[in-house]
Amino acid sequence: MRLAQLISPELSTLLRDHPEEVRELLDEIHPEDVADLVGELEDDRGVALLQQLPTNYAAQVFERLDEDRQAQLMTLMGVDSAARLIVEMDADERADLYSQLPPDVGETLLETIERVDPEIAEDVEELARWPDTSAGGLMTTDYISLAPRLTIGDAINVLRRRAGDAETIDTIFALDGSEALVGVLPIRQMLLAEPGERIDEVMTRNIIAVPPEMDQEDVARKLAKYDFNSIPVVDADGKMLGVITSDDILDVLTEEQSEDVQKMAAVEPIGSEYFDTSIWIFLRKRAPWLLVLFFGGFFSASAMKAYDHVLAVITHLSFYVPLLVSAGGNSGAQSSSLVIRGLAIGEIQSGDWLKVLVRELTQGITLGVLLAVFGFGRAMLVGDGPLFATLIATTIVGLVVMGCVIGGMLPMLLHRIGVDPATSSTPFIATLIDALGILLYLSLAQFLFSEVLAAAPSPG
Amino acid sequence: MRLAQLISPELSTLLRDHPEEVRELLDEIHPEDVADLVGELEDDRGVALLQQLPTNYAAQVFERLDEDRQAQLMTLMGVDSAARLIVEMDADERADLYSQLPPDVGETLLETIERVDPEIAEDVEELARWPDTSAGGLMTTDYISLAPRLTIGDAINVLRRRAGDAETIDTIFALDGSEALVGVLPIRQMLLAEPGERIDEVMTRNIIAVPPEMDQEDVARKLAKYDFNSIPVVDADGKMLGVITSDDILDVLTEEQSEDVQKMAAVEPIGSEYFDTSIWIFLRKRAPWLLVLFFGGFFSASAMKAYDHVLAVITHLSFYVPLLVSAGGNSGAQSSSLVIRGLAIGEIQSGDWLKVLVRELTQGITLGVLLAVFGFGRAMLVGDGPLFATLIATTIVGLVVMGCVIGGMLPMLLHRIGVDPATSSTPFIATLIDALGILLYLSLAQFLFSEVLAAAPSPG
Repeated sequence: MRLAQLISPELSTLLRDHPEEVRELLDEIHPEDVADLVGELEDDRGVALLQQLPTNYAAQVFERLDEDRQAQLMTLMGVDSAARLIVEMDADERADLYSQLPPDVGETLLETIERVDPEIAEDVEELARWPDTSAGGLMTTDYISLAPRLTIGDAINVLRRRAGDAETIDTIFALDGSEALVGVLPIRQMLLAEPGERIDEVMTRNIIAVPPEMDQEDVARKLAKYDFNSIPVVDADGKMLGVITSDDILDVLTEEQSEDVQKMAAVEPIGSEYFDTSIWIFLRKRAPWLLVLFFGGFFSASAMKAYDHVLAVITHLSFYVPLLVSAGGNSGAQSSSLVIRGLAIGEIQSGDWLKVLVRELTQGITLGVLLAVFGFGRAMLVGDGPLFATLIATTIVGLVVMGCVIGGMLPMLLHRIGVDPATSSTPFIATLIDALGILLYLSLAQFLFSEVLAAAPSPG
Repeated sequence: MRLAQLISPELSTLLRDHPEEVRELLDEIHPEDVADLVGELEDDRGVALLQQLPTNYAAQVFERLDEDRQAQLMTLMGVDSAARLIVEMDADERADLYSQLPPDVGETLLETIERVDPEIAEDVEELARWPDTSAGGLMTTDYISLAPRLTIGDAINVLRRRAGDAETIDTIFALDGSEALVGVLPIRQMLLAEPGERIDEVMTRNIIAVPPEMDQEDVARKLAKYDFNSIPVVDADGKMLGVITSDDILDVLTEEQSEDVQKMAAVEPIGSEYFDTSIWIFLRKRAPWLLVLFFGGFFSASAMKAYDHVLAVITHLSFYVPLLVSAGGNSGAQSSSLVIRGLAIGEIQSGDWLKVLVRELTQGITLGVLLAVFGFGRAMLVGDGPLFATLIATTIVGLVVMGCVIGGMLPMLLHRIGVDPATSSTPFIATLIDALGILLYLSLAQFLFSEVLAAAPSPG
């Protein structure tokens, strides 16, 4: 289905025999599709293809490759050719590539770029300074800024000259002499204004911007809230540093969501595609949590052993253990997922803990009683008797309430102390409830069946 | 922190005493923030505020309210006032509101709109025809289309006249006489072209579009892949139907992800914010799955009962049951989450099942052996003896392999048969593994301890 797979063999032949025709062929194809193709070609053919393309088109293809592939091709084409491509890339993609390179390769590249265009080298260093997952790490410096006293007519002329280089032209940013952002002018407003009007007469002064330190998830939320296509990044002094565009935010949302799903299943965030990740990486991301949970499971074994004397007399108590603890674990999984998601998208705040507690407690009691009815019925049906059925029903209510409350409160607590709430994964909560549930169940059993136990011959 | 909370009391006073000043005050505020405010005002004050605003600004505020709130305010302001607001809303938001209204209210509204502007009424009906979660349900008809033979100079004049109404102006769409989409012209290209050039001389003919039936998740993926701000919707005959903008896609991604998280925790998708959802709705979304899983848990109880004779002789077998089944469940949760996420973002395709199987099998064996070593050690340490420790270790390997394989393959199977893979939730896989794991463990125990069992007195 992918264009790349369809045309790849033909293209290889063409590249060998008539490289000059390739350029024409690709003229009408989106750089993203060419990037797919370069991803599937052998290394030297990929380099040959890139070198056949006009430099600015090649740069658009190159910036769409993943960073490992970029590094591979860079080595093959030599740092000088690579630098020519890289100066044409979008500023943010360029800085990302630079941060991913081994320090010595990055240094050599930066020196080469410095010879081609010192301003770009400086720009790369400036952008690479911010953490990858902050607003500063997402922003690009390829935006259009103008003096607020310029007329719209002049502004349109500047825009026409510079539209080719800028990553986003949907908004013009008005900066004063000290580079402070004083207004924004969407291109739509610009088209509606008269050519003789000044920018500062029509621009919006109510600026919604983000600081460079802001976490990318919060940036995504802000952009989504206001339905913007881009948002400016401004430092504490009001100085404009860059712009974040919505295409990068789509990637952030997907990435953050994958991380949350992984954490919620007790897997360390992986950050690369399923088939691009080696089994060794998967093992390293899975094994530590699986071991932690396994050691946690020792408590459930010890809890059962502690009630050895009860289990020895009433053997069929043990039959219900998996059923009971999983009812608690399942309700805990439901609650924790709902609360973790609510925290992630900002529907729930730290201060809401009491409201969450009340809601989860109410649900726990209702759901617990519902399951208890069926649990009671089941025990009666298989002939365990009313006392035993009461034990099962009571334990279920206790366990489901426990599941809902722990599942709801643990993410709140983690969020409060600054740990990602997704860490309180479903398996983690289930393990906790296994041990607590067994203690509850068997201590209740000991209490309810005290007479039976007293009458039993002591074991051994 | 929210602007709305800060200014709300003052605003109420101002609205009562000097309503005309409110308009000035709000001039520099983003409609999203005013919508937050209207969300928190009492109903009649909200209506009063909306009526003080210029109609097109009020429409921007109104379209940002959630659909329940829109319906409430509509009733209060009367269908005539409401219709005046609604014709100014973005076409896609307008159609969403209409689809959410009770049929009779919707009908009345549509008739009123028809009197104000028959074209808009037709447009609402056309857009409301598509399912909410399809490309057709997301698209807007407020885009700018031009004849391909127009010059750039003329196009810019049209653009200036119509920029105010269009939801997106970042791309101009070139339609032929039969409304078929023949080319796209990003505004950036337009600014770079000479005023005398014709649109069809500079437009891109390689059009990346989506059909109206396409699922919103696939649309989101396509838009993200090509880094577009908008994507055209085109029917089977090539006729242009509308445009989807990236702000709607950000909302889709968040919504789809919330649904996946909920399904993966065995909760029916909820679709409203945590605190906006009544406890009754939560119970209805949680109870059915909790009950299904509870009934599923009966199998684990029956499985244990079936090995009654083994458990009665070797009581401490039961101590390990929760530990063992949770090791299987946890590895299953890890595998299923990784595969479900891979399927959701398109990294894994149905055809990849063999590759997934091999990967999960390899991981299952490795992780199983790792846990088995610690399980063996634990059993020896507490004095259960080498035979028992071997039983524990063997069961762990079997269970972890089972967890990884079922966790990896079940989502693939569901995806193949057209069911959302997220339905194979962590609790569902854990319940399955509980029963299978107990059977594996106790049948192995029966085999390994056959001599002990034969020597034991048959139970009374």
